[in-house]
Amino acid sequence: MTLRVVDVETIDVRFPTSQHLDGSDAMNEAPDYSAAYVVLKTADDAPSGQGAAESAPGAEPLEGHGFTFTIGRGNDLAVRAARAIGERAIGLSVAEITGDLGAFSRHLLGDSQLRWLGPDKGAIHLGSAAVINAAWDLAARRAGKPVWKLLAGLSPQQVVDLVDWRYLKDALTPEAALKMLESRAGGRAEREAYVREHGYPAYTTSAGWLGYDDAKLARLCQQAVDQGWNSVKLKVGADLEDDIRRCRIARGVIGPDRRLMIDANQTLGVAEAVSWAEALREFDVWWFEEPTSPDDILGHAAIARRIGPTRVATGEHAHNAVMFKQFLAADAIGVCQIDACRLAGVNEAVAVLLLAAAYDVPVCPHAGGVGLCELVQHLSIFDYVAVSGSMDDRVIEYVDHLHEHFHDPVRIRGSRYLVPEAPGYSARIRRETLETYRYPDGPVWSHRD
Amino acid sequence: MTLRVVDVETIDVRFPTSQHLDGSDAMNEAPDYSAAYVVLKTADDAPSGQGAAESAPGAEPLEGHGFTFTIGRGNDLAVRAARAIGERAIGLSVAEITGDLGAFSRHLLGDSQLRWLGPDKGAIHLGSAAVINAAWDLAARRAGKPVWKLLAGLSPQQVVDLVDWRYLKDALTPEAALKMLESRAGGRAEREAYVREHGYPAYTTSAGWLGYDDAKLARLCQQAVDQGWNSVKLKVGADLEDDIRRCRIARGVIGPDRRLMIDANQTLGVAEAVSWAEALREFDVWWFEEPTSPDDILGHAAIARRIGPTRVATGEHAHNAVMFKQFLAADAIGVCQIDACRLAGVNEAVAVLLLAAAYDVPVCPHAGGVGLCELVQHLSIFDYVAVSGSMDDRVIEYVDHLHEHFHDPVRIRGSRYLVPEAPGYSARIRRETLETYRYPDGPVWSHRD
Repeated sequence: MTLRVVDVETIDVRFPTSQHLDGSDAMNEAPDYSAAYVVLKTADDAPSGQGAAESAPGAEPLEGHGFTFTIGRGNDLAVRAARAIGERAIGLSVAEITGDLGAFSRHLLGDSQLRWLGPDKGAIHLGSAAVINAAWDLAARRAGKPVWKLLAGLSPQQVVDLVDWRYLKDALTPEAALKMLESRAGGRAEREAYVREHGYPAYTTSAGWLGYDDAKLARLCQQAVDQGWNSVKLKVGADLEDDIRRCRIARGVIGPDRRLMIDANQTLGVAEAVSWAEALREFDVWWFEEPTSPDDILGHAAIARRIGPTRVATGEHAHNAVMFKQFLAADAIGVCQIDACRLAGVNEAVAVLLLAAAYDVPVCPHAGGVGLCELVQHLSIFDYVAVSGSMDDRVIEYVDHLHEHFHDPVRIRGSRYLVPEAPGYSARIRRETLETYRYPDGPVWSHRD
Repeated sequence: MTLRVVDVETIDVRFPTSQHLDGSDAMNEAPDYSAAYVVLKTADDAPSGQGAAESAPGAEPLEGHGFTFTIGRGNDLAVRAARAIGERAIGLSVAEITGDLGAFSRHLLGDSQLRWLGPDKGAIHLGSAAVINAAWDLAARRAGKPVWKLLAGLSPQQVVDLVDWRYLKDALTPEAALKMLESRAGGRAEREAYVREHGYPAYTTSAGWLGYDDAKLARLCQQAVDQGWNSVKLKVGADLEDDIRRCRIARGVIGPDRRLMIDANQTLGVAEAVSWAEALREFDVWWFEEPTSPDDILGHAAIARRIGPTRVATGEHAHNAVMFKQFLAADAIGVCQIDACRLAGVNEAVAVLLLAAAYDVPVCPHAGGVGLCELVQHLSIFDYVAVSGSMDDRVIEYVDHLHEHFHDPVRIRGSRYLVPEAPGYSARIRRETLETYRYPDGPVWSHRD
């Protein structure tokens, strides 16, 4: 008797966040935060009584939950992509999947017909992320561990084997990655104890959405200070005069010692981004995020050469490890912002953690949205325990919304994430939420005019 | 009374080409060539009799046909994306659309929620290509001209205005593009007469699909020679010993004076690609196409520095003008292979033609598939007449299949495309074909086991 994946449930979940301009920025003026949600369902492949069932009788059946994040329209495409990719998991044994998640990931991404639509980018890659994340949730629950702990318990060779090295070897060989991981294996226990006690540093974006007026910006910056935040990020990029005024307000409220970051959400050309940074230089900006097209490696490198000591940050729209390889090799970024749902799930995120550590660039994950905070905390904690071994200049983004819809929401103390302890990837959305916000037939949507 | 777009018909058309391994390569072992097909339907917005109708009574209503190309599974996603993007055209006047196709293109691509799924890549970008191509078909039919002629009749400023310059100005400013176009405007009439008389050079890929055995390869190479082809391309990249043998066969048949190109379809890492090229050096390869990941600008640049005089070629999977900008700026490609359906239609293709001309790199479009030959001939002829002004080292790919399904199929004489003369973008597939090959309910698919 073998426990197998027997079905892939996919759900289009959308939150009508555009009503209040939460999440508004210069590129994305009115997002409805959404998730293309996946449940890998399992069952024993023979009738009960014919052997030892892996799932105990009466127990909740083993499931893996995962998702990718979008901002509204088009979420149906991500759902459909997740379904098409997820069908490649049906029939596989859970032991086989969880025993070699590297092979499983390569299998999912290896459908040449679906690959054509990217390759390794766009809707198909987002859908793949949802399914691979669900497989990690499944594996972690089966092991009774949170994902970060499952990862941190792998041997250096097992970590290396999670990655598809085909296109990465000119920047980092598997052998060099192995050596790096082995050199840091000794300190794992100590670092795990440290992060359990102290948590992982974070910063807040909640104060600085572009749709907020000056008074609300000032009030939210003060609130961030009062809550203990040390780093605050503002959205910029629509109008330079506005941005100078808003940075002045923010810097005035947070004082000279806290960190201020800005984010243009891709709205500028290369030369414009440089002048923007120069005009805001007096506000001592720590990093300038998404100054231009997320595809423009050479453009980011040109900006980085001009705006130091302000660092260039990007990554939430960098679609795969090949892009990060180049951003790192070209000295184009000083902050590496992985996204747990745009990269093809945990495996490709691990590839980027290895690359960033090899280039000694801090990883500060993109979060917010729907459940991104819940996922990336696992990646950053694993990075600290086993990969980079450092928290220096590392902060996870934090946005305070939609956490109430999760079974195992993030926990913040002061300006730090507390380590998640429940088995899984913290990815599970409450069933009631899935039903209420399901698009277009859940009551939140079907009752709108 | 105003003629408006009133509906967007979308059709999932798939040809079961995987049965015969036509189109097989090292990455795509069994493609079913497919089109996400779009028809922009128009109608006058007031009942007849209330004013002068733009469409003459009894005449066929004005339509725009366009498509993007995929290789089977996932074509439904491209169709759905085209529908979502196409809805942004509904209600717009045909005069407004065709009067400023630059603004129309930016409008379609400017939905921030849909953009999140790329941005500017993947299924949404493919769907955008289908709709924008359909708008050009509409505009050209309305003008009673083939698309190349419509383009070649635009003033330099009108050509510049087709392009979204936001992310391109660090490589080429609109002012410099204008100057370049103006400097070549004088020779347009002469070049148009030349290409009408002599056609545009082409090469054939029909001989070298990876799924063909040695005897078939030799026979098809001989057939290509007999038909007058001067350039032949082979698929490589699965097994080096096989590729050495196949290049030897091909070079033996075509002799020393014809051009031999190879195409690895992204299967290799950077170092492997270099050794592949070195092992095949004795066969005097003109270009090495898609040696590695299409996202790896720096990797292509590293390969290019090592394998000269063989040129590096890529572009059929380069998803937008920002990628081409970098490939050109980094000296990563010696041959620029635009795809009429992966770039966001005619507008973004024009952007790349301008960039390539500014960097003096020849554009040799990717074709084959479904209808790609039909589309790219317009782009190359426009490039010759108005942009680069040259046919040197320029060849359009040609593959001899599926043309019979088009109303206005390409015409080849010897090894050259003849200039298309019918109004439109040569994009129209016969209605009978659309019905027969519609997936999954057309008889070709519904009658399969």
